[in-house]
Amino acid sequence: MRATLYLSAGNVIVDDVPDASLSEPTDALVRVLRSCVCGSDLWSYRGIISRAERSRLGHEFIGLVEEVGSEVSTLRPGDLVVAPFKWSDNTCPACLDGIQTSCQNGGTFGAPGSDGGQGEAVRVPLADGTLVAVPGGLSGVDESLYAALLSTSDVMGTGLHGAVLAGVTAGSTVAVIGDGAVGLCAVLGAKAVLGADRVILMSRHADRAAIGRSFGATDVIAERGDEGIAAVRELTGGLGVRHVVEAVGTRESWAMAVGMARDGGSIGAVGVPHTSPELPLFQPFLQHLSLNLGIAPVRRYLPDLLSRIAAGTLDPGPVFDTTLPLEDVAQGYAAMASRESIKVMLV
Amino acid sequence: MRATLYLSAGNVIVDDVPDASLSEPTDALVRVLRSCVCGSDLWSYRGIISRAERSRLGHEFIGLVEEVGSEVSTLRPGDLVVAPFKWSDNTCPACLDGIQTSCQNGGTFGAPGSDGGQGEAVRVPLADGTLVAVPGGLSGVDESLYAALLSTSDVMGTGLHGAVLAGVTAGSTVAVIGDGAVGLCAVLGAKAVLGADRVILMSRHADRAAIGRSFGATDVIAERGDEGIAAVRELTGGLGVRHVVEAVGTRESWAMAVGMARDGGSIGAVGVPHTSPELPLFQPFLQHLSLNLGIAPVRRYLPDLLSRIAAGTLDPGPVFDTTLPLEDVAQGYAAMASRESIKVMLV
Repeated sequence: MRATLYLSAGNVIVDDVPDASLSEPTDALVRVLRSCVCGSDLWSYRGIISRAERSRLGHEFIGLVEEVGSEVSTLRPGDLVVAPFKWSDNTCPACLDGIQTSCQNGGTFGAPGSDGGQGEAVRVPLADGTLVAVPGGLSGVDESLYAALLSTSDVMGTGLHGAVLAGVTAGSTVAVIGDGAVGLCAVLGAKAVLGADRVILMSRHADRAAIGRSFGATDVIAERGDEGIAAVRELTGGLGVRHVVEAVGTRESWAMAVGMARDGGSIGAVGVPHTSPELPLFQPFLQHLSLNLGIAPVRRYLPDLLSRIAAGTLDPGPVFDTTLPLEDVAQGYAAMASRESIKVMLV
Repeated sequence: MRATLYLSAGNVIVDDVPDASLSEPTDALVRVLRSCVCGSDLWSYRGIISRAERSRLGHEFIGLVEEVGSEVSTLRPGDLVVAPFKWSDNTCPACLDGIQTSCQNGGTFGAPGSDGGQGEAVRVPLADGTLVAVPGGLSGVDESLYAALLSTSDVMGTGLHGAVLAGVTAGSTVAVIGDGAVGLCAVLGAKAVLGADRVILMSRHADRAAIGRSFGATDVIAERGDEGIAAVRELTGGLGVRHVVEAVGTRESWAMAVGMARDGGSIGAVGVPHTSPELPLFQPFLQHLSLNLGIAPVRRYLPDLLSRIAAGTLDPGPVFDTTLPLEDVAQGYAAMASRESIKVMLV
């Protein structure tokens, strides 16, 4: 089969690899309908973190179940399913706590020994605990919803989780730092799922800001750093915002998050801190902040999000502004790395 | 009157200063019955942070109201009162959020222009929002309870707040890092106030561990660093603890807190990070941790804690292992700095 391989920084290809197949009785084999390129894929593409040569890429996909192992009980061939970006047994202590990304038996698609999402098919370990079937199946969902469904594999669940970690509830005022797909989905999650009243998006890209507004952002602030902080404080009576979603993961974005947070407020951080920013603790201490970080357990949110999408009440699909055939994946990486594209969907 | 003055690192004295007196109509004048030396007073005593020469010292005291300003409505001369270590109006947005230590009009006793607790009398600004009268007053409370009452001025409320920030509730398992007065009070707060089931105290001092056990610690671990982390993980089935109280404030104590926390767990941090530790964020991100920091709003807890102490159901008094006359305050600082004493009460 064809699958995307990482060669070196700036260099990804589609090549022939062994066909995906069942290995364990708890596996499912999924034929990929749509996959995509993630902001986190860019860390190795940009050479900031290392990655093995010819390792598989991609951890977000939707597809059709083609075959299931003998111990898989909740899925059948033909099911239209969404895979969260990590597999999980959904029964260990961490999973029962709703932190499926800390599953004792979990793993990430594209890691050594596993298939990546950016390919024709994927062996999904622990299929019962990992995959979630779309209500109504293939016949109940129009192809126009594939983009929305695909977003729940990572960015929609991750953005929503950032808002959850920031303590957003009905009526909240929240600021979102980061206008990538995760930040935009945090806007949508805060507004449409959690019922936030006011959503301030930090964005200096007109196209992204426009999607943010369509997702429910009530205010867009283009300034960064101290000027951005001052602008948010001005919007909030000088007090700062009670809820901040940090969807970038750099030292600069963290400084902004702390600077705009109201005393006693909460920061929900889902931006992967790959550059290992170190956070000076004195200021958050003075401000009495709650800092909530984590790899989003998107599996937790899948049943609810898929129901909303199938029912037509939630559409994160617009975060995909580019669609390419799998064979052109290299073009997709380049477009996202140059910020020409917010998020690339692969067919 | 007589009051404690900071001269330089390692050098504090008691000297004559102008008598405390009312200045604003919202002030109360309090004659000090008991005050004490705080672990945070040691930062300047050790020369780690700077402090103005001849500045007043002390921010914890109980006393009798001697005189009140014309706008004070909840206190009368003769009331036995506890002062939290910061004054607050108790009406601003932060106070209404229960974060009185972020009060817009607040301040700390001993700061420039204010009296310190380690003296004969104190002008208390914003008396209605700051002081809490002890139920039953002077006649209802035996002198033997003064130590317990005094502890609520800071360490008991701060320790309890650490446990609250760590999310401790009935039945919780919690680890406490720090066997100073705040750490010991975190043990007592977790157990006696919040109903924790298992309380693991990190302590390698036999005298402090003994008080910790009397306060409800079910396990005491003497090891530090990676060995301490391993010991806590062994006690908790390898998973780590869901709730950690960080009552030290150094890079090392933070590393221990993160290392022993269960995935999805919470750290409640009340140790002042005076040395400005910077926290590497990648590990807390992987562990999906909630880091909750802050200067404890002890004012929030005073009514409840004073009721418990007056009723005889809570006694944090044993954290004071040394009692000295005010004139011997220098001896008290030396004893605490050398760790001969856990906490020194001044009469």
